Amino acid sequence: MAAAAVASNGGAAPVPGRLASVYSEVQTSRIAHALPLPSVLRSHFTLADGPASTAAGSPDEIAKLFPCLYGQPSAAVVPSAEPVETKPLKIGVVLSGGQAPGGHNVICGIFDYLQERAKGSTMYGFKGGPAGVMKGKYVELTTDFVYPYRNQGGFDMICSGRDKIETPEQFQQAEDTVNRLDLDGLVVIGGDDSNTNACLLGEYFRGRNLKTRVIGCPKTIDGDLKCKEVPTSFGFDTACKIYSEMIGNVMTDARSTGKYYHFVRLMGRAASHITLECALQTHPNVALIGEEVAEKKETLKNVTDYITDVVCKRAELGYNYGVVLIPEGLIDFIPEIQKLIAELNEILAHDVVDEAGAWKSKLEPASRELFDFLPKTIQEQLLLERDPHGNVQVAKIETEKMLIAMVETELEKRRAAGKYSAHFRGQSHFFGYEGRCGLPTNFDSSYCYALGYGAGALLQFGKTGLISSVGNLAAPVEEWTVGGTALTALMDVERRHGQEQASDQEGYGGT
Amino acid sequence: MAAAAVASNGGAAPVPGRLASVYSEVQTSRIAHALPLPSVLRSHFTLADGPASTAAGSPDEIAKLFPCLYGQPSAAVVPSAEPVETKPLKIGVVLSGGQAPGGHNVICGIFDYLQERAKGSTMYGFKGGPAGVMKGKYVELTTDFVYPYRNQGGFDMICSGRDKIETPEQFQQAEDTVNRLDLDGLVVIGGDDSNTNACLLGEYFRGRNLKTRVIGCPKTIDGDLKCKEVPTSFGFDTACKIYSEMIGNVMTDARSTGKYYHFVRLMGRAASHITLECALQTHPNVALIGEEVAEKKETLKNVTDYITDVVCKRAELGYNYGVVLIPEGLIDFIPEIQKLIAELNEILAHDVVDEAGAWKSKLEPASRELFDFLPKTIQEQLLLERDPHGNVQVAKIETEKMLIAMVETELEKRRAAGKYSAHFRGQSHFFGYEGRCGLPTNFDSSYCYALGYGAGALLQFGKTGLISSVGNLAAPVEEWTVGGTALTALMDVERRHGQEQASDQEGYGGT
Repeated sequence: MAAAAVASNGGAAPVPGRLASVYSEVQTSRIAHALPLPSVLRSHFTLADGPASTAAGSPDEIAKLFPCLYGQPSAAVVPSAEPVETKPLKIGVVLSGGQAPGGHNVICGIFDYLQERAKGSTMYGFKGGPAGVMKGKYVELTTDFVYPYRNQGGFDMICSGRDKIETPEQFQQAEDTVNRLDLDGLVVIGGDDSNTNACLLGEYFRGRNLKTRVIGCPKTIDGDLKCKEVPTSFGFDTACKIYSEMIGNVMTDARSTGKYYHFVRLMGRAASHITLECALQTHPNVALIGEEVAEKKETLKNVTDYITDVVCKRAELGYNYGVVLIPEGLIDFIPEIQKLIAELNEILAHDVVDEAGAWKSKLEPASRELFDFLPKTIQEQLLLERDPHGNVQVAKIETEKMLIAMVETELEKRRAAGKYSAHFRGQSHFFGYEGRCGLPTNFDSSYCYALGYGAGALLQFGKTGLISSVGNLAAPVEEWTVGGTALTALMDVERRHGQEQASDQEGYGGT
Repeated sequence: MAAAAVASNGGAAPVPGRLASVYSEVQTSRIAHALPLPSVLRSHFTLADGPASTAAGSPDEIAKLFPCLYGQPSAAVVPSAEPVETKPLKIGVVLSGGQAPGGHNVICGIFDYLQERAKGSTMYGFKGGPAGVMKGKYVELTTDFVYPYRNQGGFDMICSGRDKIETPEQFQQAEDTVNRLDLDGLVVIGGDDSNTNACLLGEYFRGRNLKTRVIGCPKTIDGDLKCKEVPTSFGFDTACKIYSEMIGNVMTDARSTGKYYHFVRLMGRAASHITLECALQTHPNVALIGEEVAEKKETLKNVTDYITDVVCKRAELGYNYGVVLIPEGLIDFIPEIQKLIAELNEILAHDVVDEAGAWKSKLEPASRELFDFLPKTIQEQLLLERDPHGNVQVAKIETEKMLIAMVETELEKRRAAGKYSAHFRGQSHFFGYEGRCGLPTNFDSSYCYALGYGAGALLQFGKTGLISSVGNLAAPVEEWTVGGTALTALMDVERRHGQEQASDQEGYGGT
């Protein structure tokens, strides 16, 4: 057995002088890749406020939850004839939640803003996500420290975490940290939950008359954090391109051998945006979109029949291969499965699963029918693998394997009925972690750099509770617009655990 | 649900005039990528024979199996002062076995040789692998047909298959086909089994006094078809780079979150070369090499302990994440598992697996201990999933998941003994099909082009039973050597199904 030393990639930061030995040729060439800035950020600029904002929904409740911040106008970076007076700033930055390609460039953008526009500033990176803010774990970000991460994937510069700042004690801890570091601003790079949390923190700091402002940045490869002012979240572009290349390879493989149906599950639990974008890029034979399945109230049988129909029609044309794209969260979108899971959780909490199957009589007829329709391995998974609270672990179900098994069963029925006579061989794939930490595309590299540079500007002008917003993204980078949007303007109220909570418009589970 | 049309990528050949709409920007730019040729192929050249050859092992038996071809010298392409007289040729080409990036370029190389050096030639592509030769299914390869596949991944130009030409009837079918097409030569692009088959075909044709010569080309992403004259098989370079990029992404992910051990199974059932090369490129925390495991006669417990030791040592350093690389064929290399499988096959053929476990008493003590050591899911898989002959399906075992479960169990024991107190979370991956059809690297593109061009030259000079050999690969392309090596020189005799069969030196299962 060959093994590198135990600590071979043990998280040590690359030293710029040792770049060549630490980074690959591709990584080194990406570090040198020049980052263009939107024209408006290249010369003198100032901020212009728009009209007062409202909320995406339930404005009265949002206003109550954010008495200091509600109604803030959006701000746009606009050219200025004269240089605007700036002062050195102390700014902290934190990465929150799952990795997305480009995160390092947001940090580089803030850093370069401070270097170029607010000389004498200090920048801190909180380590390991929001926990770093609460525990006061940070590193001072210097040119040598930041430089090697330019245009690199991953969040390993300061790492990330999924903790939330929620309880009064935790808000107090955050307050202690920002006071100790004398921070003028904190930039929270995260998804919808993290940006909601950023807004709560901004509100809290403002309510306590702290000088620390909070600015959010839109991050999630799922691509479901967006609105008019925030046309996309960063990382989505890179992730979709990585997955699409892999899907393309698998497609070529399918066409070359002519004998496999590849069922590819793609990241995206709460939204099918990645699956849709990859489908547009690769033209698979089938792409399931969870939101459509939910809207049409489709059953698992409907979904199975849909795929099986395509397999049968292709078989008639002589094609016994293909590619099926499946969003990771598909079964969360199928109402009848949610119902079955709820009933199973109830039964499993109180009853013993007897071999004879008497427990099954407690399922409602439709749920029982669905349970019997499931492949045996999935049935066993539902009954056996439960989380510490005894609940069925839906997330552990390998949807692509489940669908292969169900299509096989349906095809055998059709074969028996004389309606299908070809061979079906399914191959399962999950494309996930490979896409979260790839080298960011030129788009994500530039977009993130502008988001960070803009966030620095927003803090310079004393803004808080805004999300850094870069728009007009279909145009060349020079023409991109830069500004900030009131986080409260993106919010609605959703119910979680029976309590009302503010959340951003989409309300999905990302952090 | 969104779906492309049923036949969206239904195997239609791209039309050159429609390149822009069929191929992506990257694919189009790769088509335009110029292919350098070794200097020796750029001017006048001729062939020079080396000394008589022997065999890699059992020369007497190989000589008996190949009475016409045994002992042939190797041939080297060498510069010639004058142009050598050439004649138009009729050549067929066939892709055999699993896809490897670069296959299309071998075809382009042969094609360009014929266009440039043997005007008036005709080239046929046999469709769907050796079955195409037997059934006489082919397509005439023209400039328009071949051009769009330059530097593209996949085998979809003429597709591939795993059939073998084995029986007297099948040899007769092949003879009928090459006679009907009046072929001067047949190029077989394949792995070790396919090249052995090519040699048998060359011997058969020679024995029947047919004019059709047979030349092999070394293809397999596994990288285990090689010798002094054939330094590597094509596709290995591309596949390892694709996998290494994905491993690198997963590593960055591991370091960014700090909480996962990624267990990555890599293609390569009979050889661990891919795992070794990827380990050299990416420096994982653990890389298991099947050949080493076999040589040291390691047990599954040894392997588990080895990984667990690394996990524990890293935990002491504060690192609870990492990457473990596992060759697809690992368990085939562990002797005790082979023994258990053999015993299980025997028992399952005659006995019923009773719930009480009485059947287990038929296992030998060591096998029984091993069986009890396996995770429950693997035990069930061994007992339940059998092939049509009733045999346990070793290939279906997801080795990476098995190892995660075993490491978890071992860590819990160490935790109970007070020797481990951290958190271990395993994530499983299989990187396979994504690598077989990627865009070939510059190396594989050039290497394959030279292999094909050289194969054309070998046929022009009337050679048969040679494998196209391009050497000095560490030097720039201009300095590469070109020639052919007697296929019999790479051979040894191995026993399969109780019969002696010729096979190439490595004797693994690729086709």
